[in-house]
Amino acid sequence: MCQSFNLRFCLLWTFLCLYGLVLAQPPRGPLVVSPQVNADKSVTFRYLAPQAKDVKLSAQFEKTPVPMAKDAQGIWSVTTSPIKPDIYPYSFQVDGVTVMDPANVAFFPNERFKASLVDVPGDTPLIHAMRDVPHGNITYEYYPSAEGTTGSLVVYTPPGYDQSPSKKYPVYYLISGTTDTEETFFKVGKTNLILDNLIAEGKAKAMIIVMPYGNVAARVAEQKGGSKPADPTGRDNPEAVKRANDFGADLTGNVIPYIEKNYRTVANRENRAIGGFSRGGGQTLRTAFGNMDKFAWVCAYSSYLSPEEMERSYKPIVANPASTNKQLKLLWVSVGSDDFLYKGTVEFMDYLKAKQVNYKSLITDGGHTWMNVKTYVAATTPLLFQ
Amino acid sequence: MCQSFNLRFCLLWTFLCLYGLVLAQPPRGPLVVSPQVNADKSVTFRYLAPQAKDVKLSAQFEKTPVPMAKDAQGIWSVTTSPIKPDIYPYSFQVDGVTVMDPANVAFFPNERFKASLVDVPGDTPLIHAMRDVPHGNITYEYYPSAEGTTGSLVVYTPPGYDQSPSKKYPVYYLISGTTDTEETFFKVGKTNLILDNLIAEGKAKAMIIVMPYGNVAARVAEQKGGSKPADPTGRDNPEAVKRANDFGADLTGNVIPYIEKNYRTVANRENRAIGGFSRGGGQTLRTAFGNMDKFAWVCAYSSYLSPEEMERSYKPIVANPASTNKQLKLLWVSVGSDDFLYKGTVEFMDYLKAKQVNYKSLITDGGHTWMNVKTYVAATTPLLFQ
Repeated sequence: MCQSFNLRFCLLWTFLCLYGLVLAQPPRGPLVVSPQVNADKSVTFRYLAPQAKDVKLSAQFEKTPVPMAKDAQGIWSVTTSPIKPDIYPYSFQVDGVTVMDPANVAFFPNERFKASLVDVPGDTPLIHAMRDVPHGNITYEYYPSAEGTTGSLVVYTPPGYDQSPSKKYPVYYLISGTTDTEETFFKVGKTNLILDNLIAEGKAKAMIIVMPYGNVAARVAEQKGGSKPADPTGRDNPEAVKRANDFGADLTGNVIPYIEKNYRTVANRENRAIGGFSRGGGQTLRTAFGNMDKFAWVCAYSSYLSPEEMERSYKPIVANPASTNKQLKLLWVSVGSDDFLYKGTVEFMDYLKAKQVNYKSLITDGGHTWMNVKTYVAATTPLLFQ
Repeated sequence: MCQSFNLRFCLLWTFLCLYGLVLAQPPRGPLVVSPQVNADKSVTFRYLAPQAKDVKLSAQFEKTPVPMAKDAQGIWSVTTSPIKPDIYPYSFQVDGVTVMDPANVAFFPNERFKASLVDVPGDTPLIHAMRDVPHGNITYEYYPSAEGTTGSLVVYTPPGYDQSPSKKYPVYYLISGTTDTEETFFKVGKTNLILDNLIAEGKAKAMIIVMPYGNVAARVAEQKGGSKPADPTGRDNPEAVKRANDFGADLTGNVIPYIEKNYRTVANRENRAIGGFSRGGGQTLRTAFGNMDKFAWVCAYSSYLSPEEMERSYKPIVANPASTNKQLKLLWVSVGSDDFLYKGTVEFMDYLKAKQVNYKSLITDGGHTWMNVKTYVAATTPLLFQ
């Protein structure tokens, strides 16, 4: 097979075959470039599948899957209309099977679905763009967690942290949603780049951001040799509330002491913020309202607590609004108008208003998406610790 | 649709549908647990696909894809025989389409294929296992790289680094292979856990490990608005050699100065090691032999240079073996007996021997795999800086 005529190709082929040994998508044939963002902000997506009968693009900038067309080499492709600059999850539907884009390294860390990410840049760099500014670091940490398990954290330290050995920083604890991991705020939310840019513009204070994994029950079960338990159904399900409280106990009992031991923090409530998206927003509100001695800044992104749970579990928060308003430097609630949690979130705002609990809010377009999460992170971090 | 009878399920369904909006693998139906490692080291893999006609498991512990069977819920599954403890890449072949395991967060960072990872633990924890020992950190860094671009690095700092503000450390520069990323030694190679364990056992010196991205040409092209160029074919292709040299120039001209500015390093050749896998091994040998003033410890994993290239480009290395042997504290070459680079690697060893250049070698079972890479990392890091 390896004749001199095509020796180089043959060697490459052998290499790629063996390297990708019975692995996902054994590389073969032409190099596939995907996604390719074009000058007019349209994007060309490509997927090599000579044998496939039907390939579609599923993307969060499209309402429905978009058919792709096959060329003579077996590469399916589609070029979209110009897209509003942002970072969008997408995947391919190949004869009905959902796949990530094999040619794209950028991925969405998640426990239940697998998606790739396409970054459509703005003509003026967006707030999450990699700009030529001083960069902070992202560090993966292990900490001693509940029931003898080892937990993992992703930690952002701001530019200059390593060069300022006596400076202490406030800390924002930031929790991702159901099925997300501790990597999602980094890899999808680009929280580090948003902060780098806001700090460079003088709009946000230099802060540490700690991103824990929200599903403590799953980690404990898995590390003890069991299987990940199913997520409880419903926001007020007692099991869901119990798990949120277990998460809060791990955060206050294990994560915060670990961070305050290993990072240079200002360790008081005025210099601790907590926020989160979706389930992480519920964990945020429960942990904050249950630990008013620990957090003075609270951000719920696309999330809320029901008035019933507030009355049942956090009565002092609403019974003494003057005290709450004095203690909380910020209570933030934001949601997209197409979010399936929109109605509940607005009811939560109305409830807070009726109880005279101060809050700030932002209602945006869009749904329960990480495009909106980035907007909320960029809107709230300039308010923290000011 | 949302009757009180099944309201909770309906709310969950709505949540999951919207959260996974037109996304990969919209979660539906039962929670799928996969992979599930059983007590006897067999593994059960599961994939939900009620409509699929044929689902197979492709895994690096199996020679050929293994058929899976569908149950009444539409979950395809297979339970393997007991597997030798290690971490293995795998994927599913769903009606001929390669997919990652949607239920599994552990993934193989790569530019051209997408695979999940299954970790079969040993009865005695393996050298890459998470043990209850002091842990170092993994940090993601950005550095100013070639042609005004921003490069990314993954950096391991050993346990105690942050608590020993005056201590300086040696540095191991460790380069992954073709189509790998700067994350692969962390996510697949578990280099941080291997070092944590070796350091805890007193077998390796505390060291910093810097993991760069090997494809500088691709990064530069992409950041300048172009597309990733195809990898050159053949190990001696002039374009491949040029790119290896460009990589070496970025490493010595940009990465090392950045690290030595931002980390507490012992900045001399006796405290700098370089190593790599596959293409990264070729980059290692070229960078080391071309910069004998910079590195005293050199490790080629599953890689080699041809005698022709040695004669052409690195004549002084073999012309003065006494000098080379004095300068290099370690020259390491390892390969698996089933590796497609086995023959070339053994020829390289024979060539070094004939030229009286000292080296240490390890020939293992297995092929061009990350199972072997972990073995080589665990075998070589105890030798470094001793």
